[in-house]
Amino acid sequence: MDHTADELAVIVERANAQGRIVLVCEHASNTIPERFENLGLSTDQQQAHIAWDPGALALARGLSERLDAVLIHAGMSRLIYDLNRPPHAAGAMPARSEVYDIPGNAQISPAERLARTNAIYLPFHDRLRHEIARRLALGLDPVLVTIHSFTPVYFGQQRAVEFGVIHDADPRLAQAVVEAAPENLITRLNEPYSAADGVAHTLAVQATPMGIANVMLEVRNDLIADPAAQSAMAERLAPVLARALARISPPQAGQ
Amino acid sequence: MDHTADELAVIVERANAQGRIVLVCEHASNTIPERFENLGLSTDQQQAHIAWDPGALALARGLSERLDAVLIHAGMSRLIYDLNRPPHAAGAMPARSEVYDIPGNAQISPAERLARTNAIYLPFHDRLRHEIARRLALGLDPVLVTIHSFTPVYFGQQRAVEFGVIHDADPRLAQAVVEAAPENLITRLNEPYSAADGVAHTLAVQATPMGIANVMLEVRNDLIADPAAQSAMAERLAPVLARALARISPPQAGQ
Repeated sequence: MDHTADELAVIVERANAQGRIVLVCEHASNTIPERFENLGLSTDQQQAHIAWDPGALALARGLSERLDAVLIHAGMSRLIYDLNRPPHAAGAMPARSEVYDIPGNAQISPAERLARTNAIYLPFHDRLRHEIARRLALGLDPVLVTIHSFTPVYFGQQRAVEFGVIHDADPRLAQAVVEAAPENLITRLNEPYSAADGVAHTLAVQATPMGIANVMLEVRNDLIADPAAQSAMAERLAPVLARALARISPPQAGQ
Repeated sequence: MDHTADELAVIVERANAQGRIVLVCEHASNTIPERFENLGLSTDQQQAHIAWDPGALALARGLSERLDAVLIHAGMSRLIYDLNRPPHAAGAMPARSEVYDIPGNAQISPAERLARTNAIYLPFHDRLRHEIARRLALGLDPVLVTIHSFTPVYFGQQRAVEFGVIHDADPRLAQAVVEAAPENLITRLNEPYSAADGVAHTLAVQATPMGIANVMLEVRNDLIADPAAQSAMAERLAPVLARALARISPPQAGQ
């Protein structure tokens, strides 16, 4: 990986925020560093949901501002490395995503898999882990909230759900978010997918073993397609998160 | 933390080993860096099980040699930072251990708790995590085995168990080790303590979320009290681990 790619591995905003929430956006960007030659994808494909979660970063920024929450996000496409997958997962550097082949990922050598792991996965997760550890050491009560968007049509099927709330082993915060969600937003627990689909890696590796509450939020991307809609959704969801946080039991003391 | 302390946070031996096992010894050392002024403990207390796991490092080295396994171990006492505990756990920098007060830990400020976390916990666990990620990225099948010893007498009670085999959420390797254990070694699953006692942090944070098999081994320290006994125990347990590894199902492919 060149130096430019390295710097894109992890970006931190509002580093000195005082709120309890640590926001994460693993699929914030569709940037593909030059050396990857667009992974052989068309311009349209590079704009599509396979390359990133459209609207998710803007929504995460809106929540960060409203909740005074630190935001840690990716600077390059999940097709280079999907930060929500471990290094040995096929989906970490997918050769195919939904109905699209990814030519640049068709033949990844073990050395290239290791290089991307070292340049992207480890710096991102180290930085996030250090942020959480810092707050734990200081006796603060961090919680982890990851922000995603999903495509309205997947493998040709229309998805009715608008707001998906996904948990790993600890369902506390997810259940509280569902209970606090607006009535006029079609909200579902563990839809359009769940931890059983392998989508809860960031929660499982960063939050569950530390005993901190956590949730993965998924917003249908047609609802956050432009800046006005992104801002409006942040305005709707910020109080949902605040209410949910107030409802869950305080963290258990470590042993 | 001074520079000397930093260098003691994590020590790697047999870094280029070819075996599948990643050996860890969190309580390898009773070294207390000078600035901690012995934590106010007597020389006898600094030699006791509260400061480290006597015999564990020598046993781990014996296993590392026999199994061609990388070994990652601590360079200072667990009373400075217990690497098998998260930063917010009382036991990470204990003010009391078994029947002993630890004067130097009686009043730890949040800043000092953070300094020890940054200087010891994070470098150790980052290094271990990078080793596991490297092997996963290269398509190897790592497994994690942590090596501990326990005191024969705890709170005045004699312990009959000689070999404790402890698991976190994934019991595969622990069960296989118990089945492969020698008949003339008193072996117990999840004794003298279990994950419910908060002792499985390294397994929970390093192995469980990556889906790799793992186990924590505890040997009663009177059985590994001198170099001859340590070597003999390594000679007994190395084939146990090898047989157990051969019995467990291959790792599941990541998604």
